[in-house]
Amino acid sequence: MDKAARGQLVDLPVDECWQLLTTTPVGRIAWSTTSGPVVVPVNFVVDGRTIRIRTAAYSAMVQKADVERVAFQADHIDETSHSGWSVLARGRAEVRYGEPADAAGPEPWPRGPRSATVVIDVDEVTGRWLNPGER
Amino acid sequence: MDKAARGQLVDLPVDECWQLLTTTPVGRIAWSTTSGPVVVPVNFVVDGRTIRIRTAAYSAMVQKADVERVAFQADHIDETSHSGWSVLARGRAEVRYGEPADAAGPEPWPRGPRSATVVIDVDEVTGRWLNPGER
Repeated sequence: MDKAARGQLVDLPVDECWQLLTTTPVGRIAWSTTSGPVVVPVNFVVDGRTIRIRTAAYSAMVQKADVERVAFQADHIDETSHSGWSVLARGRAEVRYGEPADAAGPEPWPRGPRSATVVIDVDEVTGRWLNPGER
Repeated sequence: MDKAARGQLVDLPVDECWQLLTTTPVGRIAWSTTSGPVVVPVNFVVDGRTIRIRTAAYSAMVQKADVERVAFQADHIDETSHSGWSVLARGRAEVRYGEPADAAGPEPWPRGPRSATVVIDVDEVTGRWLNPGER
């Protein structure tokens, strides 16, 4: 690596952002409220240019995110080398009910009824890579 | 572990949420915009009941988060056992300039001038623990 690049943040191309999202099962969905944003970790799948999350029909995510613009963030950061990537995908969320179990969508890690699918129709993706810094 | 507890989400006491925040150097700050939330990973320190982040004076974080309610989220999730914790701290952010280098605050991992400190005065902390599910 070019020594001058150490510790620098580098913007990632959109295709690479989408590819990186397929490398981790866990990300975070964020929605806005009148008292500030809420950020919740979820497991997810990428399906085309959408992000799909299964959740309970009574969850705060379903109540607050439906038909709203939301953000989805995933990252992988190495705490030793101070390097890694982060991707932010933004778009409108839509809640669907009663999708068959074999539809594209992750098996949620928490147990319990998960009859709702939050589908984020992503229209903006940005990502950055942080090169390892000097040690 | 009680088998009935497998795969269950359990609310964490506030003190345990703060303690968990001291166990990881990286979290994510989120702020609201008219086009939805923005979520950005940062390294941080806990100082009393505040969270402190150093950044560049010209960063989007400084421009958008100052004097606004923001969210700060950290987690540690084991992708194999499907277990882990997540903490969400919310409060008002304030940007301070020119704090001495020895003030409480992390050394930012990206290189470059970092003359601003974002201090989140946390007034609400929630956290959850996900027990390992059946494998």
